[in-house]
Amino acid sequence: MTGTRIRVGICGYGNLGAGAAREIEKFPDLELVAVFSRRPVEIAQDVPVVRLEEAGAWKDRIDVMVLCGGSATDLPEQGPQFARDFCTVDSFDNHAEIPSYLAAVDEAARAGGRTSIISAGWDPGLFSLMRVMMGAVLPEGMTQTFWGKGVSQGHSSAIRALDGVVDAVQYTVPDHRVMNQARSGEPLEFTAGERHTRLCFVVAAEGADTGRIEREIKEMPNYFAGYNTEVHFISAEDLLTNHSRLPHGGSVIHSGKTGEENVHLMELLLKLDSNPEFTASILLAYARAVYRLHAQGEVGARTVFDIPPVFLAASSRDTLITDLL
Amino acid sequence: MTGTRIRVGICGYGNLGAGAAREIEKFPDLELVAVFSRRPVEIAQDVPVVRLEEAGAWKDRIDVMVLCGGSATDLPEQGPQFARDFCTVDSFDNHAEIPSYLAAVDEAARAGGRTSIISAGWDPGLFSLMRVMMGAVLPEGMTQTFWGKGVSQGHSSAIRALDGVVDAVQYTVPDHRVMNQARSGEPLEFTAGERHTRLCFVVAAEGADTGRIEREIKEMPNYFAGYNTEVHFISAEDLLTNHSRLPHGGSVIHSGKTGEENVHLMELLLKLDSNPEFTASILLAYARAVYRLHAQGEVGARTVFDIPPVFLAASSRDTLITDLL
Repeated sequence: MTGTRIRVGICGYGNLGAGAAREIEKFPDLELVAVFSRRPVEIAQDVPVVRLEEAGAWKDRIDVMVLCGGSATDLPEQGPQFARDFCTVDSFDNHAEIPSYLAAVDEAARAGGRTSIISAGWDPGLFSLMRVMMGAVLPEGMTQTFWGKGVSQGHSSAIRALDGVVDAVQYTVPDHRVMNQARSGEPLEFTAGERHTRLCFVVAAEGADTGRIEREIKEMPNYFAGYNTEVHFISAEDLLTNHSRLPHGGSVIHSGKTGEENVHLMELLLKLDSNPEFTASILLAYARAVYRLHAQGEVGARTVFDIPPVFLAASSRDTLITDLL
Repeated sequence: MTGTRIRVGICGYGNLGAGAAREIEKFPDLELVAVFSRRPVEIAQDVPVVRLEEAGAWKDRIDVMVLCGGSATDLPEQGPQFARDFCTVDSFDNHAEIPSYLAAVDEAARAGGRTSIISAGWDPGLFSLMRVMMGAVLPEGMTQTFWGKGVSQGHSSAIRALDGVVDAVQYTVPDHRVMNQARSGEPLEFTAGERHTRLCFVVAAEGADTGRIEREIKEMPNYFAGYNTEVHFISAEDLLTNHSRLPHGGSVIHSGKTGEENVHLMELLLKLDSNPEFTASILLAYARAVYRLHAQGEVGARTVFDIPPVFLAASSRDTLITDLL
C-alpha cells in the first residue's frame, strides 16, 4: 500500500507516543514518517526524530499528526499550535477543560483550513461515546462509569510531586458491590468517591515524614479528598518489580427501563494490559478518521461524537456492511 | 415542545410496533401522530389507526416512519415502498440479504428525495457498530458475538410452521465456557453452532408424532442443523405460564493484542427483559437521527455505521461535550 498510505507524525515520545510508534504497523493504511520531540530520543523505528521547533517544515509531508503529549501542560499549548498546520488527533483528558480546549483547537484548525479530533482515547473517548449512545437508546435510565483496577498516571504524578516522595504508583480500584448495584437497575447514584478506592504505593525519601506524606495525599483536593484512599510505603525495588506495568480498564454501565417494569442492562467493559498501547491504538483509528474527514472537505475541531463509525475502519463501507452489519 | 417535535408514524403493530408506540413518550422531541396497519388494531394511544394503503396521504404529515414489520416478508416490500415517500428507520435483520435490501431502499429514497436508516436494532445495529469499532481500534484481534439467553422469534416461528406443532418457543443459549475462552484472548474461532445451544419448548397437537417433529427441528437447515439442539414437549398451559416473556441479550467480545504480549478485552454486554421494547427504543433514537440527517440535506439509505453518534441524542452537542465527553 506504500504511496497511498496516510502519512503520520507522532508528537511526543513518552509511553503514549512510543506505543503509537509501535502499534502503527498494525494499521495497514498508515505509515509513520517522523517522530517529533522536545528532547533527542532513541526510537526503534527507522524514521527521523525531528525537534519540535522544526515541525513547521513538515507540514506538507504529514497527513495527520498524532499528539501524544500530556494534558496538563503539553496539549493546551501544542493542540492549538499544531492544529493550524496539521490535521491532528489527541487524547486530551482534562474533562473540565474540554470545552475551552475544543474551542481553541477549533479556532486554530479553521484558521489553517485543517481538521482535528480531540479527546479520542478511552475516557474521554470510547467511554464517552457509550455514555451518549446508551442514554439516547434508553432515556429512562442511569449511566455510571467505573474505572480500574488500573494505574492512574495523573494521580501517580500528583503523589510524586509531594515533598519527600521518590516515586509512587496509584491504582484506581472500583467497588464491585457498587458496580453490581449499578448493574441491577437500582436507581442509585454514587459519587466517584463512593464508586472507587484509591490505592497508593509510595517510595519515601530516607528520613522523610511518612505521616505527613500520607496526610497530604489523603487531603489533596480533586485527586484524593472524598475518596477512600489507602497509602502503603514500599521500597524502590518493590515498586519496580511489582508495580511497573500500566494495566487499566473499567466499565460504563447503563441500566434503563421500558414499559412498566422491564429492566435492561447495557455495559461496555474494558480490561487492558497496557493503557498507553490501547490509547495509542484508538488514536491511530481516529487518525484514519480525521484524514478521511479532511479529505471530504471538513474543517475545524471534532469530538468522537461527531465521527461516523465507518470512518474508523480499514475496510471499505461495502465490506463492513457485508461482513459486520 | 409541541409544535417543534418530530412527527413519527409507526408502521406495523406487532410486538415491535406496540413497543415503539409505548416507548415514544420517553423521547421528549418525538411525537406519535399515527399508526399504520394492514388490519384494524386496538391501540392504547390516542392517535388514528390508518390502513396501510392510505399511508400515501400522510406523507406531508409525518417526518419519520418507523417500520416495525417482519424481515421475512413485510420489510422487503415495505422498506423500499415507504422509503420513496417517507424518511424511514427499520430493524431489517436478515443478515445475508442486507446488501440487496440496502440497495433497494437507497434507490427508492433517492428517487423520492428522502432519507432512511436500515437495520438499526441491536443485532444488526448496536452489536454491528461495536464489531466495527472494536476491530478498528485493535486490528490484531478477534471479535466474537454471543446471543442469549433469549427467545429467538424467528426460530420460534420456524418451529411453529412444522406440521403437528401448536405453539413453540425457542431460546438461544450461549456456551459460557466458550464465552470465557473468547474473553481470555485465546485465538480460537468458534462456529455459531459451537457458541450456542438451541433450547426448544414445543406444544404438539394431540396424537402428533413427537419423534418426527423433534427430528424435523434438529435437521432444519440454517436454523438448527449444526447446533446443539434440545427439544422439550410441554403443555400449552406450561408454555403460556413459563415462556411468554421475550427476554434476550448477548455479548460482543473482542480480544486483541498490542506490543509483544499485551492482551486487551473489550466487551459490550446486553441483558434485556424485553427484546421488542429495547429494539423499539433503538429505532426511536435512530428516527431522531434520520430526521436530522434529512434536515441537513442528506438523501438515500444509510446504516448505523454512517451515523455520527451526536445525532442520536436528545441533548445538544454542546451539552453532550460538557456533560458526557
